[in-house]
Amino acid sequence: MANRNQYSELIVDVPAKSYPVIIGNGLLFDHALLRKQVKAGQVMIITNTTVAPLYLSRVRQAFTDRQCDTLILEDGEAFKNQDSLNQIYDALLKNHHHRDTTLIALGGGVIGDITGFAAATYQRGTGFVQLPTTLLAQVDASVGGKTAINHPLGKNMIGCFYQPDAVIIDLQTLETLPLREFRAGIAEIIKYALLEGGEFFNLLYQALSQGLADNQSADLPAIIRECCRIKARFVKEDERESGSRALLNLGHTVGHALETESQYKRWLHGEAVAIGLYCAALLSYESQCLEWSDVELIDKLLHMAKLPSRIPKTSDLKAIEALMAQDKKIKNNKLRFILIKAMGSCYVEENLTNLSLQTVLTRALEGE
Amino acid sequence: MANRNQYSELIVDVPAKSYPVIIGNGLLFDHALLRKQVKAGQVMIITNTTVAPLYLSRVRQAFTDRQCDTLILEDGEAFKNQDSLNQIYDALLKNHHHRDTTLIALGGGVIGDITGFAAATYQRGTGFVQLPTTLLAQVDASVGGKTAINHPLGKNMIGCFYQPDAVIIDLQTLETLPLREFRAGIAEIIKYALLEGGEFFNLLYQALSQGLADNQSADLPAIIRECCRIKARFVKEDERESGSRALLNLGHTVGHALETESQYKRWLHGEAVAIGLYCAALLSYESQCLEWSDVELIDKLLHMAKLPSRIPKTSDLKAIEALMAQDKKIKNNKLRFILIKAMGSCYVEENLTNLSLQTVLTRALEGE
Repeated sequence: MANRNQYSELIVDVPAKSYPVIIGNGLLFDHALLRKQVKAGQVMIITNTTVAPLYLSRVRQAFTDRQCDTLILEDGEAFKNQDSLNQIYDALLKNHHHRDTTLIALGGGVIGDITGFAAATYQRGTGFVQLPTTLLAQVDASVGGKTAINHPLGKNMIGCFYQPDAVIIDLQTLETLPLREFRAGIAEIIKYALLEGGEFFNLLYQALSQGLADNQSADLPAIIRECCRIKARFVKEDERESGSRALLNLGHTVGHALETESQYKRWLHGEAVAIGLYCAALLSYESQCLEWSDVELIDKLLHMAKLPSRIPKTSDLKAIEALMAQDKKIKNNKLRFILIKAMGSCYVEENLTNLSLQTVLTRALEGE
Repeated sequence: MANRNQYSELIVDVPAKSYPVIIGNGLLFDHALLRKQVKAGQVMIITNTTVAPLYLSRVRQAFTDRQCDTLILEDGEAFKNQDSLNQIYDALLKNHHHRDTTLIALGGGVIGDITGFAAATYQRGTGFVQLPTTLLAQVDASVGGKTAINHPLGKNMIGCFYQPDAVIIDLQTLETLPLREFRAGIAEIIKYALLEGGEFFNLLYQALSQGLADNQSADLPAIIRECCRIKARFVKEDERESGSRALLNLGHTVGHALETESQYKRWLHGEAVAIGLYCAALLSYESQCLEWSDVELIDKLLHMAKLPSRIPKTSDLKAIEALMAQDKKIKNNKLRFILIKAMGSCYVEENLTNLSLQTVLTRALEGE
């Protein structure tokens, strides 16, 4: 693990820009680094009620040399909506922020997604820097430029692609992260292990055996770096998800539907993805492309990560099916599912039947 | 002027794509052309209460072979807001539009801007085709990918850059355009003449002498094509307005402030731009870069176009100044104004004093 003020850096290249993902310990204390990455004369830090007492004043101190405003939103996926977005626009206008301002997202995936969307759309685009403080945001959400808010009729339905100018990952913030949130982040790491296979799969398996679920693994920094590297590769290949980037949605079709069905209140995003990964494994088995022993292995990983893998009996399966029919990956009116052939080999399946989907949802129910 | 089914085409090139601007007579009747430019299996036509009775069924008939939904918004700049945008999102979700749908903007600049923003942000980006039916949209707003909605605190404050897949300009639609709207479009043409100078300036002067203000000039198709060509050149050079594209804002700093000050109710966009062009001419004279005879010539053009050029005495100059302090072109906290050195030679001025701005606003008042 890097010591304070030591950090590693990788670059995300997309056609219109390239930006650094900087990973290290105590980076939120490194005001020289923050000032180097944020040159704007105006700054607005957007965070939530949970993160603000922990890290806001620390970050704010880096910007005492310029106009620095802050906005504290309510915490949770249920607040990733138009109302919160309007709060950001209003604060920017009332404080006379111009389009050369920089918005800084200090928090998890929700704060990153909504701040990114505000940055993309305020005066047709401002500066944008991500300071992810949750494991899920560090390994997945903060890299790659997907921004969005939810709509009552579907998760992430309103948004756009807008790459940040920098992502600064302070590993120390994970020390204050509640275990439930930490484990939710592991769900996305398991996704990367299924996509990547090989050594990375083995590294994760070993870390889970060492107690990763309780944040007890020395391999965590290496795992976070590797996830960012895999994500950067997918984003470079296909920034706007017209091809291979769709594979990153493994587990997310069922996951998003579960989140929306429960009105973003029951599940953390990563928990819903964990159940979605198990459903993807079952569907892959049903489609005769995955061995049953691998389905069991995936279930075991989720169990080792202390994540849910089954759909609660109280869920409305019909509603979940209807929500999937609105999925963003639909093309030519066909739902496209990401399936697993083997660890490290996934693909986009366009010809799933509704019957196999229903069968799998029923099989994934708790107690089945 | 081209006969029906004859049309000219020019290409707008930006880094990520290139798209055609197709100009001709009766193109909304040309269903083969419309179908060639819109290949999506789902289509939503967005228009307003004024344009719908004139052209909606005509366009809709091109898409009887697929899902084609329509949405009719209220007419006017006052409705280019979050409420109308939400109506579009809701209609898309309720009719199960996927991200491979195409939104078709059938109307003027307001419909084009709001539809473009919806296309940019629904499921992170759908197809988008512009069918501009006003002179202003045909010569300016439909080309170049600026999309936006207004905020109570400022015009076009929320938006992004999102290029259309095609712009189809049917010159016949100008036959049903009210003269007040037609003249508002001439304001943007005058802007292009000031930016371009030379032959285009002479062509416009001649057309205005022939009665362009009453839609009585045979040169109109050539003028529209030339404006699109000039705009395409600026957009190619600088899609996201980090440099030369800012010149296209000539007349717009005062213009936007006038629109916002009157809550988008008093002025058509082009009328506010006309007053803004006169103010820009006065400011250029005050800054000792434009001859007084050229200020008079610009005033004469606006007069020939039957456009307003003076700020009404009832306007709140303090409010207008405050609104300009929120202008999108502000950089390093300095308001940047587009000034005129001579016909065909404009530049960005960053060192205007508040005093010269106040002087000019007062001189531009009606009756001064």
